[in-house]
Amino acid sequence: MTSFVQPKSIVCVMSCDVPVLADIEAAAERIKSFIVRTPLISSPVLDELVGGHVFLKAENLQRTGSFKIRGAYNLMRQLTPEQAARGVVAYSSGNHAQAVAAAGSKLGIETTIVMPEDAPTIKIENTRRLGASTVLYDRYSGDRVAIAEKLAGEKKCVVVPPFDHEHIIAGQGTTGLEILQQCEEFSVSPDQVLVNCSGGGLTAGCAIAICGSSPKTRVYAVEPENFDDTKRSLASGNREKTDPAARSICDALQTPSPGEITFNINKKLLSGAATVSDDEVREAIRFAFQHLKLVVEPGGAVTLAAVLNGHVDAREKVTVAILSGGNIDRALFASIQRYEINK
Amino acid sequence: MTSFVQPKSIVCVMSCDVPVLADIEAAAERIKSFIVRTPLISSPVLDELVGGHVFLKAENLQRTGSFKIRGAYNLMRQLTPEQAARGVVAYSSGNHAQAVAAAGSKLGIETTIVMPEDAPTIKIENTRRLGASTVLYDRYSGDRVAIAEKLAGEKKCVVVPPFDHEHIIAGQGTTGLEILQQCEEFSVSPDQVLVNCSGGGLTAGCAIAICGSSPKTRVYAVEPENFDDTKRSLASGNREKTDPAARSICDALQTPSPGEITFNINKKLLSGAATVSDDEVREAIRFAFQHLKLVVEPGGAVTLAAVLNGHVDAREKVTVAILSGGNIDRALFASIQRYEINK
Repeated sequence: MTSFVQPKSIVCVMSCDVPVLADIEAAAERIKSFIVRTPLISSPVLDELVGGHVFLKAENLQRTGSFKIRGAYNLMRQLTPEQAARGVVAYSSGNHAQAVAAAGSKLGIETTIVMPEDAPTIKIENTRRLGASTVLYDRYSGDRVAIAEKLAGEKKCVVVPPFDHEHIIAGQGTTGLEILQQCEEFSVSPDQVLVNCSGGGLTAGCAIAICGSSPKTRVYAVEPENFDDTKRSLASGNREKTDPAARSICDALQTPSPGEITFNINKKLLSGAATVSDDEVREAIRFAFQHLKLVVEPGGAVTLAAVLNGHVDAREKVTVAILSGGNIDRALFASIQRYEINK
Repeated sequence: MTSFVQPKSIVCVMSCDVPVLADIEAAAERIKSFIVRTPLISSPVLDELVGGHVFLKAENLQRTGSFKIRGAYNLMRQLTPEQAARGVVAYSSGNHAQAVAAAGSKLGIETTIVMPEDAPTIKIENTRRLGASTVLYDRYSGDRVAIAEKLAGEKKCVVVPPFDHEHIIAGQGTTGLEILQQCEEFSVSPDQVLVNCSGGGLTAGCAIAICGSSPKTRVYAVEPENFDDTKRSLASGNREKTDPAARSICDALQTPSPGEITFNINKKLLSGAATVSDDEVREAIRFAFQHLKLVVEPGGAVTLAAVLNGHVDAREKVTVAILSGGNIDRALFASIQRYEINK
């Protein structure tokens, strides 16, 4: 066993193939009965504030509270009976964890998830409620990949990676397909789509779906300012690393560097990347509460933060911003609501 | 001036006509460019909990944060230029207030709104932000109708009533039309639609829209247990009054008795009414936060509370529950999130 995605017995997760539009369309068909076709939401208050048309793809309303179920279910549905019988291991800051647990519960596959011990309580509890075993580690001193590899080696089972796999990317890309379909239903053509970016699976999948079908639409990644590895990587052309001392309120968007497969896609298809501060994320969460009536977690609010603060120009444009998740602890949510931006 | 809807100079608001399906269809056409076609949301967690299919019509995502804009805009768009030039007066616990203010702002009509001084801060602030003048009164000792009548008499202007008018009812009924269209888009046929009920405008409008187009679908009203005037009126056949000492967390659902026009409609078309306790409403708000990622105000959460607590049987049925609004103060929201149901 030499790679975390490559325990000896596993074929499924060895692939380094880049998915194409047809793979995303096949994924959409494969997962459609299990996922929610989340709404594309418009908000007059937001439109008037921004001076353009902004549509929010509300993946916070997705099964398990984030888009991650799309990729996890797409991959796990394609395991062989032998692979499924051995169970799977995954590592995740919390949203992929719930997704793998939910997919496992649906498909009758045992799941073990390596999660940071400081993950939001709601994410740990939901993962367990969905039937997974959890193994907690210290986010800043532990190596989640090594822990997951060791577990998978012991169980001789598949690791379901969080982003760097064609089936995961294809699954997440179904979000982009739906965005284009729903824009058509609204009789609008999107000028730009903003995707929050961590390892880059959602970004890459959406970029393939959108750039393949609507070449005039630009796709941008949005990151927390301390985790701008994709932005810097796009600038340098190489996969840049995050400072290990970096911290962010966005627990879902903290990866050491872009994925290998995902970055190869993103560097070809993205029109750029923007970053937002933690304070801007808090402000976006408050805005979503007060004006949109949506619960958005920090990592899910970066695209809204980018629009609200003009980091991406949305004036006189049709912009789609993905709200990727809504799993936030109520204590943090309450503290953000009380937080005063003008202090 | 003998009636609150009948200042001498006003023709528009004198009508006691009962709207029909065609009026609702005309209203839908009239208001469509100004309102949001709010999504019909499904939730696997809710479905699995209830043992049926539940769809949530998310009017909390509507312009001004509640369905009220539908009726207010439908009426105010039909004022004569002379009526519009004199401005309008309205009385409201807060959601109709914001709706009248927003419609006035769009149509260039001055608006003055009589509101209870204990209305949620978010409702008073939003009403003012939308350009209305506000007149506050004590909910328990003042007579909002008399105050509004006096103001309208001085200004010789129209009162835009909160529910008991054909144009208001027709506007609110567009919610029901959309529910049927969206159910068709989901390829489901609703067995029952649950509508929160105060004066009965939304309920009556939806009942006309739904019973007219889908006779097999039952429509139920849901009320707070201390404000069950419609439930008791349906039982007796007469418009029963609420106990003046009654209190509820549902600030939007506190009327002294059903409307005259609305009750005449509701007594013919409704299949019944259910009630929920304040604790059940709090639990529903928490459920919406944690599992649905939606912000719902107390009055907007009664239908969800009814489903969650089995006051309406949703097992093996297709149920649509209207979440009518999301305007809740962040302090109350935070306190509800901390509230322990098992105390």
